[in-house]
Amino acid sequence: LSTNELFSGLYGRGCMQAQVDDRAFLQAMLDVELALMRALVDCGLAPPEAARELAAECDATRFDLEELGRSTGEKGTPIPGLLAALRGRLGEAAAAHLHRGATSQDIVDSAIMLVARRALAPLLGDLGRAADACAEIAEHYRASPAPGRTLLQQALPLTFGLKAASWLSGLDGARAELSEVRDHVLAVQLGGAVGTLAALGDHGLDVAAALAAQLELIEPRLPWHTIRLRPARLASALGSALGVMAKIGRDVVLLAQAEVGEAAEGAGAGAGAGRGGSSTMPHKRNPVDAVAVLACAERGPGLVATILSAMSQEHERAAGAWQAEWGTLAELLRLTGSAACVMRELLERLEIDADRMRANLDLGGELLMAESVVTALGARIGRSAAQQLVESAAGRAVKQRRPLREVLLELPQVADELGSAELEDALAPERYLGVADKLIDRALADHRAASDRPAAEA
Amino acid sequence: LSTNELFSGLYGRGCMQAQVDDRAFLQAMLDVELALMRALVDCGLAPPEAARELAAECDATRFDLEELGRSTGEKGTPIPGLLAALRGRLGEAAAAHLHRGATSQDIVDSAIMLVARRALAPLLGDLGRAADACAEIAEHYRASPAPGRTLLQQALPLTFGLKAASWLSGLDGARAELSEVRDHVLAVQLGGAVGTLAALGDHGLDVAAALAAQLELIEPRLPWHTIRLRPARLASALGSALGVMAKIGRDVVLLAQAEVGEAAEGAGAGAGAGRGGSSTMPHKRNPVDAVAVLACAERGPGLVATILSAMSQEHERAAGAWQAEWGTLAELLRLTGSAACVMRELLERLEIDADRMRANLDLGGELLMAESVVTALGARIGRSAAQQLVESAAGRAVKQRRPLREVLLELPQVADELGSAELEDALAPERYLGVADKLIDRALADHRAASDRPAAEA
Amino acid sequence: LSTNELFSGLYGRGCMQAQVDDRAFLQAMLDVELALMRALVDCGLAPPEAARELAAECDATRFDLEELGRSTGEKGTPIPGLLAALRGRLGEAAAAHLHRGATSQDIVDSAIMLVARRALAPLLGDLGRAADACAEIAEHYRASPAPGRTLLQQALPLTFGLKAASWLSGLDGARAELSEVRDHVLAVQLGGAVGTLAALGDHGLDVAAALAAQLELIEPRLPWHTIRLRPARLASALGSALGVMAKIGRDVVLLAQAEVGEAAEGAGAGAGAGRGGSSTMPHKRNPVDAVAVLACAERGPGLVATILSAMSQEHERAAGAWQAEWGTLAELLRLTGSAACVMRELLERLEIDADRMRANLDLGGELLMAESVVTALGARIGRSAAQQLVESAAGRAVKQRRPLREVLLELPQVADELGSAELEDALAPERYLGVADKLIDRALADHRAASDRPAAEA
Amino acid sequence: LSTNELFSGLYGRGCMQAQVDDRAFLQAMLDVELALMRALVDCGLAPPEAARELAAECDATRFDLEELGRSTGEKGTPIPGLLAALRGRLGEAAAAHLHRGATSQDIVDSAIMLVARRALAPLLGDLGRAADACAEIAEHYRASPAPGRTLLQQALPLTFGLKAASWLSGLDGARAELSEVRDHVLAVQLGGAVGTLAALGDHGLDVAAALAAQLELIEPRLPWHTIRLRPARLASALGSALGVMAKIGRDVVLLAQAEVGEAAEGAGAGAGAGRGGSSTMPHKRNPVDAVAVLACAERGPGLVATILSAMSQEHERAAGAWQAEWGTLAELLRLTGSAACVMRELLERLEIDADRMRANLDLGGELLMAESVVTALGARIGRSAAQQLVESAAGRAVKQRRPLREVLLELPQVADELGSAELEDALAPERYLGVADKLIDRALADHRAASDRPAAEA
Repeated sequence: LSTNELFSGLYGRGCMQAQVDDRAFLQAMLDVELALMRALVDCGLAPPEAARELAAECDATRFDLEELGRSTGEKGTPIPGLLAALRGRLGEAAAAHLHRGATSQDIVDSAIMLVARRALAPLLGDLGRAADACAEIAEHYRASPAPGRTLLQQALPLTFGLKAASWLSGLDGARAELSEVRDHVLAVQLGGAVGTLAALGDHGLDVAAALAAQLELIEPRLPWHTIRLRPARLASALGSALGVMAKIGRDVVLLAQAEVGEAAEGAGAGAGAGRGGSSTMPHKRNPVDAVAVLACAERGPGLVATILSAMSQEHERAAGAWQAEWGTLAELLRLTGSAACVMRELLERLEIDADRMRANLDLGGELLMAESVVTALGARIGRSAAQQLVESAAGRAVKQRRPLREVLLELPQVADELGSAELEDALAPERYLGVADKLIDRALADHRAASDRPAAEA
Repeated sequence: LSTNELFSGLYGRGCMQAQVDDRAFLQAMLDVELALMRALVDCGLAPPEAARELAAECDATRFDLEELGRSTGEKGTPIPGLLAALRGRLGEAAAAHLHRGATSQDIVDSAIMLVARRALAPLLGDLGRAADACAEIAEHYRASPAPGRTLLQQALPLTFGLKAASWLSGLDGARAELSEVRDHVLAVQLGGAVGTLAALGDHGLDVAAALAAQLELIEPRLPWHTIRLRPARLASALGSALGVMAKIGRDVVLLAQAEVGEAAEGAGAGAGAGRGGSSTMPHKRNPVDAVAVLACAERGPGLVATILSAMSQEHERAAGAWQAEWGTLAELLRLTGSAACVMRELLERLEIDADRMRANLDLGGELLMAESVVTALGARIGRSAAQQLVESAAGRAVKQRRPLREVLLELPQVADELGSAELEDALAPERYLGVADKLIDRALADHRAASDRPAAEA
Repeated sequence: LSTNELFSGLYGRGCMQAQVDDRAFLQAMLDVELALMRALVDCGLAPPEAARELAAECDATRFDLEELGRSTGEKGTPIPGLLAALRGRLGEAAAAHLHRGATSQDIVDSAIMLVARRALAPLLGDLGRAADACAEIAEHYRASPAPGRTLLQQALPLTFGLKAASWLSGLDGARAELSEVRDHVLAVQLGGAVGTLAALGDHGLDVAAALAAQLELIEPRLPWHTIRLRPARLASALGSALGVMAKIGRDVVLLAQAEVGEAAEGAGAGAGAGRGGSSTMPHKRNPVDAVAVLACAERGPGLVATILSAMSQEHERAAGAWQAEWGTLAELLRLTGSAACVMRELLERLEIDADRMRANLDLGGELLMAESVVTALGARIGRSAAQQLVESAAGRAVKQRRPLREVLLELPQVADELGSAELEDALAPERYLGVADKLIDRALADHRAASDRPAAEA
Repeated sequence: LSTNELFSGLYGRGCMQAQVDDRAFLQAMLDVELALMRALVDCGLAPPEAARELAAECDATRFDLEELGRSTGEKGTPIPGLLAALRGRLGEAAAAHLHRGATSQDIVDSAIMLVARRALAPLLGDLGRAADACAEIAEHYRASPAPGRTLLQQALPLTFGLKAASWLSGLDGARAELSEVRDHVLAVQLGGAVGTLAALGDHGLDVAAALAAQLELIEPRLPWHTIRLRPARLASALGSALGVMAKIGRDVVLLAQAEVGEAAEGAGAGAGAGRGGSSTMPHKRNPVDAVAVLACAERGPGLVATILSAMSQEHERAAGAWQAEWGTLAELLRLTGSAACVMRELLERLEIDADRMRANLDLGGELLMAESVVTALGARIGRSAAQQLVESAAGRAVKQRRPLREVLLELPQVADELGSAELEDALAPERYLGVADKLIDRALADHRAASDRPAAEA
């Protein structure tokens, strides 16, 4: 029993839980031992039957996890216990070749890389579909003006499409970084007790290469038992992905405030009050998915810091820092995977209220458009003069609580140089959106390119 | 299934795992709902039968964790799902009073405090017994000279008893802080949806007081739904306890180096190669318990940082930061409890080699004692003159690779003023231990005082 | 030159910068050396003139910081360089007694504690005045209804006074924790090279006691050179204070949103666009003070984690972990002090719009008050029936976009049992505030009690 | 005044301090404003004289940092104050074009990227030279057997050359990651107030491209004002570099223990007791450089966590999270740069004692070589039989405190199958080094390839 089930809707949504649980780790360890045996066979160092015999025993569901857990305490890793259990099931010949040339750390490290590679598949899938949903929003709301906000204050208009395009660029950036990690960072570890591969004589490098090929992981140039750049890079990329999702989740929470009302989480098809609903407070639709994403993301930075702090590893195997990585990486993968799954669901059913955005834009009585008027007027009477004129008009508008338009039209320079029609244009948010459209195009093009790439580089 | 079993020897030793798993959380939530019902009864707001009826249903083993986990995702907390399940089992009258006046956060927060209080019992027990073991070592090795080391270089002699007394002061300090947290920080939370307790009319404060009494938790002056000093204080105290244990664990690892050999982990009563042993490397006795302590401790600071970072909670219930606390506090409790359990075992069976300590003291050819000679000689010829004399003698001793004694006795001032016998004294580590003995007395007295205190203040 | 000046309005507001800069650290080290000399005099181990002579030289402005900085690199701490500079200025007799019995770590650790104690004075002062401002707000807006928000959704009414009282309880809680640290945690460190105080013979404990008295710091029971509970406790308390301030700062940012408009930062007396103003965007009043608080607070958890991680210190002086504390604690003190200064200014000039709060309460068309109607109606027709009735009415109100009142009055049970007048009452936020008032009283009483306490315990 | 000078030997060694101090930041901001003006000129949006006029004023030494610091507090960034100061020095025409199209965040973000790029030059230079020193050590000690240690226990022999090659692979890996960041991550930010570049009409993308060209930074596809993957990637790479250096620093501290004695920090050319020396303890040579590296590295993970935590940025400009990045990134750059400088010095003057390594190998009485004997004997009598034989012999050797050789030769299988000469071989550490040599070749080849690459990709 664990804390994983009760809060699984929060921290372990989707299939990610199963990717990083005990069974997954144990299976990965078995897979590494088997791949090592096959590599030995490939190099002529073990008989093919040993691999066949071993293959029949490498099923994680058939081991006693509690017993293995206890042996982890006795020996410092689960491997001695696992080997004892395996040897008991193998003939003497196969048993003699089991684990040959390897040390416990080789198996655990390679297994963690394997777990990571496997977990990245659904994780990248969810991130990709979340990005797809973002791309659709960006396209659909390409021309919908909305308030742009700095320090949570309305600043200038943008389009909701651009906001979504910005989210999209974040999701695709996180995907690219994680794909890079998957394809160029996740490597086997094989070094033997101290990194010399001495027990394999001259064959060490060949076995390592064969092992990498078996597991479809990178073959590193050197063993990396205490050079922990790979776990650090994996953790950092997961932390960055969580950070990007936190940004989107936070925006959604803010947009969903009753007083803002520009977006809401969809209720889903569930019965009753449905997702995020409350029977006692029927007016409330809680942004529960955004909250779940934020809860996962909040836990990321501390976990990444643990992995970085654990890089300080002694000599040829660390006393504590290495062992701290296992649970930390599992948790990071779980939380990132869960957040990605929720993010996808959230974006796929996000309800967007473009009318409310337009209405919110008007809350400030056109003052949001002051910069636009400066630009328009500046083209006639000079930037500097225009700026002074508009600033003082805006000041009066605020003080007198009148629309900026009215105050401006009282000024002869504005009335004469721009006139009411051009002023109208300058005050229209739709006309002051800069290159929003082109930026959306860029984000969509990049997204299509990323999605078209074959999986191995995606 | 989770990552908790396979690595349980490392991260979840002893009984701590069961204190913070799903079942423990769920039971605590049920206990809070029941205590609330009883508090309502105490205040005349619910009929006694409602509490009796509810009591019969509050057994965590009878709920479907998977189902509750799913509902956590739907509603943002497990409480609505739990209430639905409970209501289905209660008569209409009891059901109508269930959870009255409370909001989900009230139940979750109070339950976490309850889980923490329960988990602190074995945790403090293990820390106390670890401290007992330390106290025994301090007493037993009170007079055993050993090298004191700064920046890992031998500096001056101390006694191993003083080293153990220093560890003891750390363990007792950590216990005191955690006891303080248990007795003055862990509080019920009851505020209703936004902290006004409106649904209880004028009875809110009475119900809150009764709830605190029922659960034997502190009654806070105000609800603390988004003022998170209490979780922060709990987390910090756990982090400090891990830090103290890491210090001891690291010392043990360093003392256990073959080249130092001053301490080793006991093998325990296990069969075969035993704890920390290796069948292929019979000369190795791995310090697996110290490694487990260090692995747990390495994960502490990031988890504490998460709790502190999560203090920035919005309005009357946070969107993400609060929800991030649950799994983080559970993990912190588990790791600290596990480390305390291992620490106790480690200290109870630590093998100490006083002869090796004495031998290591001689490695530096008496140079370690230069400061002692300065002190002795200074009493005769003045500190300043003595210092210059000894420094230059020590320099020659290093350069000529001769014992310091020999070089010193060639100096007339030393030969005349101190003579060979007094120099002998000045060079004896046993004679240059300052107030080590008195400090050990202090640590032991404080430890006895802490242990004599009744549990409620221990 | 440093990064401290350019961003000082953000990270180093008020006097805090000067409390933790190089000069402050150097002066504290000089003060510790002087206090040690006076302690030696007190114990009859040094002549009074030595202390008088030394006192004349202990002025931090007269030392070459660059030179000392270089020597820190050579020797690992600034103390050897400082001692060399001091000895050059003292007569031989005084020089011979300088630093007697101490090791570099004794001076640096004691100096850091001294710096912390000094920095806590303005820090606690600012926190206290921030709390005073909160108390005034709580009193003034005691009866002002405002929307309470959970997950950033309107949930039930509270009063703005209660919100401020909640902030107040947080600020006073943080003050209490920091005062506790100041009075019971900040201690001198004196142990000599390895904690035995050997160079002081039998006088070690007397000198340590005299040193503590001189510096008005706690006299610890044992040296704590590598038992780092004290720095950890200091760091955690600072981290908690930052967390509480972050909560308030975040609330202010959220309340200041144009769409919410319940609070705004005061412009202050500055000329021109003033604090937070923008000449080009006259409608904007940026919440710059809340932003500064949040920026400081965001940096807290990582710094606390560093101090906790650094608790794992080797033997009698750590190689790296101890040295990492110095800059980290200085930064934590600076950021917390700066945040407290800004928090005080922010709260003292916070502009609050009670009308807007009332208006925002009405946004939801009375749905916020559904729970209140259930309570009122439940007293007549039973909780369970009332709940069903109101829930379904609320559902219709949402669907048909009509006021809840209207829909409810169509129901015979409501019309008959409650009638329009009582329904009116049940729908009035002012009437559904629970024990808000009593909680405000509690917070104000606790605040007065804390403020009346003499400084030494405040 | 700051805390930077006094501890500069520790946290700010070499030239890094000057790369990230106030002046460097201010100069970078001026450089960005100037580059923006030139970009406007390039795009025909400003007259060339405006750029010439501005260029004459962009000298950071001529601004009042204290005044700018104050204005940062008033406005939330230093830019409004800086613009006011600049405008006062420019003619009206140039002043009118100053900062056109940009928002404060554009300038600050681009300036931070510029500061990072500039700081990475010496940082990568130092890392490169540290790697060169490592490469020399790897080559020179290619054949020197040394104990390989796991969990700080001697495990199997390796060569010191392999250990250095492993360090080398870490340093080169960190360099590659930082180079990647420099060449593909550090980008200009230009978006205007909300990312639309509205104030530049249709020219926004052209100006952004011209700005990137002027500053030799990446031109991003979209503005990244609240998508913080770039700062996160920079921080992570710095954190990883610190982690690798911590690994090396920790190894050096451990090797430098008196009881191990395999390496020591060189004293350098300094007078007196020299680097790391102590006048009162002439036997001590403190590993002060390794300590400085570890002190910097200890502070890394918390700073990286802050940057990751700060990714959760609201809407179009964050309220707090963004502002927290500035000081954090400056500190990370400073600490990593300082550590790299010290690391280089340390490795360039590391004193290595190959004889002591060989002697330490013999401490365990040949038990270290048990695995080697199993391999040799296994080739004759089968792995499984050999393993059992040697294990039991090793057990006896430990129990009877006799050399393994002696015990083995009593066994007929060993005497007959291997004989004394082959056993001698099997027991010689020099003969059981696996592929150490080939791995050194790989590391050296990779290092040469990395160093031959032109700077832009190095």
